[in-house]
Parts: sequence; structure tokens; C-alpha cells
Amino acid sequence: MTDDFDVIVIGAGPTGENVADYATKGGLNVAIVESELVGGECSYWACMPSKALLRPPAALEGAASVDGAEQAVTGGLDVDRVLARRDSFASDWNDQGQVDWLKGAGIELVRGDARLSGERHVTVTSGSGERTLTAQQAVVVATGSVPVVPPIDGLAGVSPWTSREATAAKRAPARLAVVGGGVVGCEMAAAWAALGSRVTLLAKDPLLLPRMEPFAGEAVREGLVAAGVTVRSDVAVTSAKRDDFGVTLLTDHGPSVTADEVLVATGRRPNTSGIGLDTVGLEPGQALNTDETGRVTGVAGDWLYAAGDVTGRAPLTHMGKYAARACGRAIAARAVGRTPDSAPWGAEATTAERSAITQVVFTRPEVASVGLTEREARQLPQPTRTVEYEIGSIAGAALFADGYSGRAKLVIDSGRKVVLGAAFTGAEVGELLHAATIAVVGEVPLDRLWHAVPAYPTISEIWLRLLEALLADGAF
Amino acid sequence: MTDDFDVIVIGAGPTGENVADYATKGGLNVAIVESELVGGECSYWACMPSKALLRPPAALEGAASVDGAEQAVTGGLDVDRVLARRDSFASDWNDQGQVDWLKGAGIELVRGDARLSGERHVTVTSGSGERTLTAQQAVVVATGSVPVVPPIDGLAGVSPWTSREATAAKRAPARLAVVGGGVVGCEMAAAWAALGSRVTLLAKDPLLLPRMEPFAGEAVREGLVAAGVTVRSDVAVTSAKRDDFGVTLLTDHGPSVTADEVLVATGRRPNTSGIGLDTVGLEPGQALNTDETGRVTGVAGDWLYAAGDVTGRAPLTHMGKYAARACGRAIAARAVGRTPDSAPWGAEATTAERSAITQVVFTRPEVASVGLTEREARQLPQPTRTVEYEIGSIAGAALFADGYSGRAKLVIDSGRKVVLGAAFTGAEVGELLHAATIAVVGEVPLDRLWHAVPAYPTISEIWLRLLEALLADGAF
Repeated sequence: MTDDFDVIVIGAGPTGENVADYATKGGLNVAIVESELVGGECSYWACMPSKALLRPPAALEGAASVDGAEQAVTGGLDVDRVLARRDSFASDWNDQGQVDWLKGAGIELVRGDARLSGERHVTVTSGSGERTLTAQQAVVVATGSVPVVPPIDGLAGVSPWTSREATAAKRAPARLAVVGGGVVGCEMAAAWAALGSRVTLLAKDPLLLPRMEPFAGEAVREGLVAAGVTVRSDVAVTSAKRDDFGVTLLTDHGPSVTADEVLVATGRRPNTSGIGLDTVGLEPGQALNTDETGRVTGVAGDWLYAAGDVTGRAPLTHMGKYAARACGRAIAARAVGRTPDSAPWGAEATTAERSAITQVVFTRPEVASVGLTEREARQLPQPTRTVEYEIGSIAGAALFADGYSGRAKLVIDSGRKVVLGAAFTGAEVGELLHAATIAVVGEVPLDRLWHAVPAYPTISEIWLRLLEALLADGAF
Repeated sequence: MTDDFDVIVIGAGPTGENVADYATKGGLNVAIVESELVGGECSYWACMPSKALLRPPAALEGAASVDGAEQAVTGGLDVDRVLARRDSFASDWNDQGQVDWLKGAGIELVRGDARLSGERHVTVTSGSGERTLTAQQAVVVATGSVPVVPPIDGLAGVSPWTSREATAAKRAPARLAVVGGGVVGCEMAAAWAALGSRVTLLAKDPLLLPRMEPFAGEAVREGLVAAGVTVRSDVAVTSAKRDDFGVTLLTDHGPSVTADEVLVATGRRPNTSGIGLDTVGLEPGQALNTDETGRVTGVAGDWLYAAGDVTGRAPLTHMGKYAARACGRAIAARAVGRTPDSAPWGAEATTAERSAITQVVFTRPEVASVGLTEREARQLPQPTRTVEYEIGSIAGAALFADGYSGRAKLVIDSGRKVVLGAAFTGAEVGELLHAATIAVVGEVPLDRLWHAVPAYPTISEIWLRLLEALLADGAF
């Protein structure tokens, strides 16, 4: 067993796997080090199990919102089956499938805790001892992120759920308190409410999903309330205590909340503590700054890379995989003496991490967004404008569900006449997003988008209405 | 009441309404003439009622295909409620809403049968007599299309259904025979099978949906068969006869088919008979050829326009509306002495009618397509290639429905490295289409599409897989 590789990737989540895969495809000899399950948070404690929990209620609501079909829906969710299906999508927390994939891809898996031990060196500690690997070309940090439990009096002592317990729980708690109004908080409040928990969500900000367009948070709040969730925003939890009656949270105003479990979903931080960053002159615990190709700045010798949540730029599975593809290709290019194309939208650049981050929130309604919000666009030097339209007034939406409620918004660069950002709320809008993403990334001018004819009667006809409104307003 | 207008539009379907609307917005004084319901086929006997019939079974199937949700579905469709909902989407065949819309848009409605009566003249015959209108700028023919009943022995005599009866029927016939394997035949076979009819579909071509990618027709055949439809393709109906036992169709091979009703869905022709084309030197019954702005070729004086199904180019509601927008804007431009921008993708050009026609077939599975098929691309002088991928292997699809089955295909211009066409099959793929449409119309290069990151886990991640396959194959 050799300890010499071209590339060593620390962390076998989706980001690490993709760096390894693309570097391997580029002809390099790659090891990947993982201390937990190969496949990472996404496969076992995030995207997959959370969406597996959220899809059955969404599918049932889809049928129940169409007259003629709703009469066939006479029961409720089979919670045991939903949880069993979730278990299956989480591969029963067994990573053999992913291990097999690594093997098939020609990537060497090293099990254990990895830490940097100086330039190009990674020391791995496992039950079988310590082993130091050497990378000829690059070491890539893809250790992801970890949840932050805020310093609230007593909170750590009540064994709160993080996203791991919230996605992997074997039964619905009778009462669930959710602290945090971001994506994880809203999705898990929706999921467990649908599965039978009495849910109270406590959010610090006045709006849910505070980084997105305000109408998104408002729509999700309405959806959660309609699903029976008690939503309290603009409220701070001041202390937590567990006794025989459950966990009681005190807040800075309003009543206390008592629940059987508390999910803390107040954010994540880059997972860069305890991985030896100090041995290469970097500060542990901080996000790793990189250039466009994933090369960590401030480290001599051009050998240290990072991708995914550890960079703090776009902490989403698909964006991490995107950065990973660029990073893996860049390492392979440099290995053969080729300078990567790191110009905007170049083959080895992660341009979309700056200007075209995509996100879908699988609440009811769904929320989908790409690129800039109106608030972000207003920080730009150039003039921008927006247009909004009710999706419910589109024939395709009315046909899709009785009383369809949703909204679409585009953020436009007024001078260049291109789309800088888009946001959608409504049932199944997650699949509407990619059209906007291609418009943003492709920098397709409005007068060309005009010729992209949505099929009638689909919900995508929202594009026609948005463009007609812009045209009527002289925007192009 | 004046008889002088800037523009006279013959036919108040979606195409006519849009020409009138855009000409009016351009400052012109517009009359629209209609002999039937304002709103046209689409509103009462096509898109709207057909999709209203198809959505409830699709919604129910959506729930029934997700373990944990399916247990809640214990009944069948409430057929009466489905039909009542359909009636509502067809506005109970009352056009008052559309009439009000015309009024609000400032368009004058003239009820009656219109025919051209020489240059710039339209004679309207109604119960209140005959009236000749004069157009200062333009007359627009937007009379749509009518179904063709093929010259099969006895067929006309059995009072077959056309798309009108198939979308407006007040109850499901016990036995329905469908002649024709195109979009109308497949959609209506699916709809009435779901609503309780025993359906036999007889198609002349070996493949269903013969103009689309072959895998689309195959998938729809499988879906129809799974829904209980007897599908016989590559078969010709040779005669029809109605007696006390129903209508019996004889075929050129195989058994005869007896049914209570027969839907003839073997195509449509431009509705240009009996509208006075001979008075301006054109041959009645033929499609009207136009230039890029909708101006009819072969007519002197630049006053006669046509848009929508009458041109025979892209007989789909949304494409007719698209041509209508260009046509209405072109007329308004010329009225003020401005030359319309009829260059490819110009403001008053109908470029997409040639290269980016979109279509969604609302069967199970759905079919969605834009631009060229592989077969069509092979007629081009330049080299092209294709890539295909199973949608069911995408995590978002697996989460969406257990056993999701679907396929995606892109047709690529190998030299320019842009997408020329796309086709998708699978549940809910109708909303995936617009991303492909923007890629085709925007001529977004493959190496830029690479940066459009589909959110995980959505079905749209099919784009990543298609592009990865193209990249691995050296296509960009």
C-alpha cells in the first residue's frame, strides 16, 4: 500500500468525491480520506433524507389540491412507510454503495481522521494506527461544515437535535421546537408537522429565509401556519432546560415553549478545526479563501486546494460539486503543465459561486432562487430593476392545482438587459428554476428570451408574463 | 359604429386576440371578427379542457407513486367532479370573460362570419345582415385550423368525435375508439381511459407521436397500455359503420373494433376555405405562406397578414400567440413608417417558428420537446450529435416518484457546440422544457451551460448528467 498519491482529498462528501473523480479522470492517482460515512452529510443527514421526508406530503397535497382527484385521498400519510422510504434514500446509513462507486472510479479510500501535517502531507489516524500520506500535486480540503449551536444558556445541555437528528429521527416527536428560520429550520418544521409533530418554530429574524426575497419567507410562513406550525419570528431564545415534561425554551418576549425535542438550526460553520491548518500557516476554524480554481490563498507552493462548504461561499451540495469539478479539472491541468482557464465562466473557474448560486427550498410552497436578490442587486454600481408576477394567474398553474398560489420575480440589469437573479414560490417551482439559471449564466438578453416560447398550458408561461410586463414597461 | 379600422383581425382565438392586442398597444384601432366563441379552440375545445381532463389523473398518480403517500389514496377519481372542473376551465363554453377582456384591451368585437372581399376589405355576415369593414393598415387572417376526417368508407356517416367532442363530452363512453396516434389521439386516449372508458387506439404509423423522437412514442405507448388502453399501431381503418351495438371499425389487418364513440384525430388543416381568399388571388383551403413578420406572400400592397395555424408552420396555441405578437408589432411598426426588425431573432420576427417550436404532450408519461429532433438535425449540412440519459437515475426523480421512468435527449450542433433540440419523457417533464428552450433560443454554448448548476436534488439535475456525458465524450 503506497502512501504517495498525486492528489489527496480530505473528506468524502459529494464535494470531495467530485474533486477526486475529476482529478482521476484527468489522469491522476487520487486518495480520499474519510472518518465517517462515505457520501457525507448530503447522502445521510441532509439533502436525501430531508427530501425523502418532504416529498410524500407534497405528493399527497398535489392530489388533494385538484378537484376530482382529492376525493380519492381519504387517508393520511403512512408515517411508518414515509420513514422507511427515508431510510432507504439514506441507504440505511450504510456507505457500501458509495465505497463501491469510489472503487469503480479508481479512487483509493483511506478511512480515518485526516489532518494536514505540513506541505503536501496528510496524517491519517484510525484504529489501525497513524499513517502519513504525501501528495505530489495537491491536497484538497473538502471537510464541509458543521452546525453551530449558539451560546444560549442551557441549550447544549438539553441534547438538541441538529440537522442530523432531524433528518434521521426514527419517529415523530409529539412536540418539536425548531430554533432557526433558515432553510433547515423551515424544511424540518414542514416535514415533522406533516408527519404528526406539533411544531413551534422560533426565528431570530423578522422574516423566515432572511437571505432570500422577502416574499419567499412570507409565503413559507403562510404555508407553515396552514400546516399547523406555530411560527414566531423576531424572537430570541434566552435559555433552555430539560425536565420530566420535556425541554422548555424561554424567549425574550412572549410565552415559553415546551417540546419533546429541540432542533437547533441556526447556521453552520466551515469544518476547519482540528485538521492541521496551523501546520501550513492558516488559522483553524476559519473559512478557506481560494482563487477561482479552488487554490487556497496565502499558502505557498500552490498545492493546497479547498472546495465546498469549507470555503464559506455557497454552502450547498450542488454548488460544492460544481466547485469540485472546477477544482479537480484545475489540478489535473496544472499536473500536465497547462494553465487552467480561470477567466469568468472558464472551464476551471467557479464563476457561478459568485453570480449564479442556485437553491431550492422544499417547503410548501417550494422556494427556488438563483443569482442576486433585489437587495443584493441594489449594491451594484449599475442600474437594476425588477419585475414580479403572480404565478396563480397563469393557466398552467390554475390547471395544476386549484387555488395555486405563487410568485415569480426577476432581477434585471437595466443597461445590459440581462437577468441577474430570479426567485419563485409555489408548488413544484423547483423545476422552474433551471430555466432562470440558464438565462442568468448564459447572459441571454431579454429580447432573445422573448423568443423562448413556453408551451401552453405549462406553469413556465410565467416567463411570457414577466417578459410582457418588462416589454410594456420599456425595459427592452 | 364605424366600418373603418386600422387593422381587422379575422378570428378571435388566442392568435387573433394577441395580434389585436399588440396592434392596439402599438396605437392602432383594431376590430376582431369571430363567428363562434371568442377565445377559440384552445379555450373551449383543446388546450384548456384537455388539460383539465388530464391533470386530475396525473395528480392522483403523483401521490400513488410515492410510498407513504399512496396509502392515503384509497379511492378512484371522482369523474363527475373532474368533468365539472373541466367545464369550469372551459368557462362553461361561455365567452363573456373573453369578450370583457377584448373590451378592456380596447379592441372592437364584430360577431359574424368574415370573408375577404378584395384588398383591405372584410365582409361580415351575421343575423343582423351584412357589413363590409375597411382596414387602413392590415387585415390579419387568424382563422386557425379544422380537423380533417379522412376519406374512410362510412366514417363521416357515423358522426365521429373530433377534438371538440372529445374534450367537451359530458360523460365517458363505455367504449371509445381513437383513430390517430398523434398528440390529440394519445392525450384523449389517456384522458378517457382514466375516466373509465375502455379505449382502443388505432394508429396508422408504426410509432405513436411519429414526429417526435421515437423514444417518446414508445414511452407513451407503454403508458397507455399500462393505463389499460389497447394500442394498435401500423394499422389502417378501412371502413366504419354504426348499428345498434355501436360503431364498428374494420381494419386492414387484425380484428375489427366496436365502440360507442369514435374519435377521429388524424390531423388538422388550415381553416382557409370560405373566407374569400379567391378575392385577393389566393387559393382557398391552402396554408398561407408568410414572411418572417407574418405578411402573406403573393399579395400586393403589403396589407394581408396571417398568423397561427393558418400558416401551417407550428399549429400550437403558444406558437400562434408568439407569431401573433410579432405580427401585431410589425403592423404597428409599419403604420408609423418604421421597418420591422425581421432579422433572425429580431423584435418582429417569428424565428422560433422555424428553429425552436416547443410542445408538451400531457400523457403519462409527459413528453416535452423543443427544436430539432435527431432525424431533423441529420438533414442539416453541418455535423450534429446527440446525447441521451435516463431521468430515473437522477436522485431528484427517484425522490419524486418511486420507480420514476423517463428519458432526456439533446441534439447538439457539433461545430457551434450549442443545443439544437431537446426531448424529455417522464412525469412532470413539461416544466423541464423551458430550460432547454432558453438554451436553444439563447444559443448558449455547452461550455457555458456547464456553469448552470441544477439545484440538488431536483429532476433538473439531468442537465448535469447530459453535460457530463458530452464532456467525457469530448463534445466541448
